[in-house]
Amino acid sequence: MLHAPIQLSLPEWIDEAVDLQATYADDAAKVALAIALSRINIARDTGGPFGAVVFDEASGRVIGVGVNRVLPQSCSVAHAEMMAYMTAQASTRKVRLNEDGARIVLASSSQPCCMCYGATFWAGIDTLLIGARSQDVMALTAFDEGPLPADWIGELNRRGIAVRRDIGRERACEVLRDYGREQHRAY
Amino acid sequence: MLHAPIQLSLPEWIDEAVDLQATYADDAAKVALAIALSRINIARDTGGPFGAVVFDEASGRVIGVGVNRVLPQSCSVAHAEMMAYMTAQASTRKVRLNEDGARIVLASSSQPCCMCYGATFWAGIDTLLIGARSQDVMALTAFDEGPLPADWIGELNRRGIAVRRDIGRERACEVLRDYGREQHRAY
Repeated sequence: MLHAPIQLSLPEWIDEAVDLQATYADDAAKVALAIALSRINIARDTGGPFGAVVFDEASGRVIGVGVNRVLPQSCSVAHAEMMAYMTAQASTRKVRLNEDGARIVLASSSQPCCMCYGATFWAGIDTLLIGARSQDVMALTAFDEGPLPADWIGELNRRGIAVRRDIGRERACEVLRDYGREQHRAY
Repeated sequence: MLHAPIQLSLPEWIDEAVDLQATYADDAAKVALAIALSRINIARDTGGPFGAVVFDEASGRVIGVGVNRVLPQSCSVAHAEMMAYMTAQASTRKVRLNEDGARIVLASSSQPCCMCYGATFWAGIDTLLIGARSQDVMALTAFDEGPLPADWIGELNRRGIAVRRDIGRERACEVLRDYGREQHRAY
C-alpha cells in the first residue's frame, strides 16, 4: 500500500495550452507563458494562481511546465515550480536538468515560496526569472510565502543561479488580484 | 504528453519494513523508525541515506513514510520528507495533514534541507523531530543542505511547529557515515 505510487498530474488543458515546438527567445516571452498558464489555471478552476515553465536556454523551447495543483491533488508539494521541475526531470530523465552542460531557465509567474526556493537549488537550473514579487502575492491574495534567508538572491547567485525579477510583474499581479478578489481559498 | 502523471514511488521493501498497526509512543521511537528506513534504503541501494515518517500524535501510528528516491526516480524533489508528506496526504486526502485538528508529527533521520524545510510550513504538521544535524550531513557525506533563514527554528515555532532535535543523533550519524565511507554519489 505504501509502495503504491504517488501520482501528480497537470490539468487536461495543459497540452493544448503549451506548444512544445514554439521558441521563447527572451525573458519577457518566457515569463509571459508562465503568467498565461497561471491565468488559465484560475479560469478553468484547476488550481491556484501560479504558473511556471522550464526552458532550454539555447533553443528557447519548453522542457517542463507546472501550474499550482495543491487542492485538486490534495498535495501541499504541488506548487507550480515543483510541478515544472518534476515534469522536466521526468521527460529528460535528468535529476539535475543542467547536468550535461545545457543551460536551463525557470520562469515563474510569482516569486517562489520558501519550499520552491529551496527546490531551486537542487533542480539544476542556471537562471530564475520572476514575475510578481512575494510582497505582491501576500498583498493581493491570502497566500503566505514563508521565510527565506535574508540574502535569498545572493544565496542563489553563489551557487551559480542568476535571478532576474519584475518581468511582466503587472500582468502577473492582475492574475493574483483577480484570484484574490474572488476570495478563492488559500491554504 | 504534459498531462501524463508524474509517478513517484517508494521501494518495494517499504510495505514489509513499516507496520501500519504498530504504535510509536515517544520521540525516540518515532525517530528510530525514520533512521531504520534510512539504513534499509542504503543497504538495498534504493536511494540516499535519509528516512522520514509522518505520525498521528494521538495514536502514535504511522500515516505516511518516505525515503530518499532522488536518483532512482530521476527527481530532485524526491527527498525523504517530501515523500513522507506526499504519501500521508495521498492516503488521508488532506492537503494540510492537521486540518481537522489532529496533531501531526514528522520524524526525520536528518535535519531537513532548504527545500524540505520550506515544505514543512505547508504540509500541516505540529512537531518536527530531527536525528542528525545539517552539520553532520555535510561533514559525513557530500550532500549540501542549502541555505536557511538565520532563525530557522524560530520561524517554525512562530507558525505553531515545535522542533526537537538530536534525537538518536548518533545512530543517524552512523548511517550517514557508512554512506559517506562508501563514496556513494551525492547530487
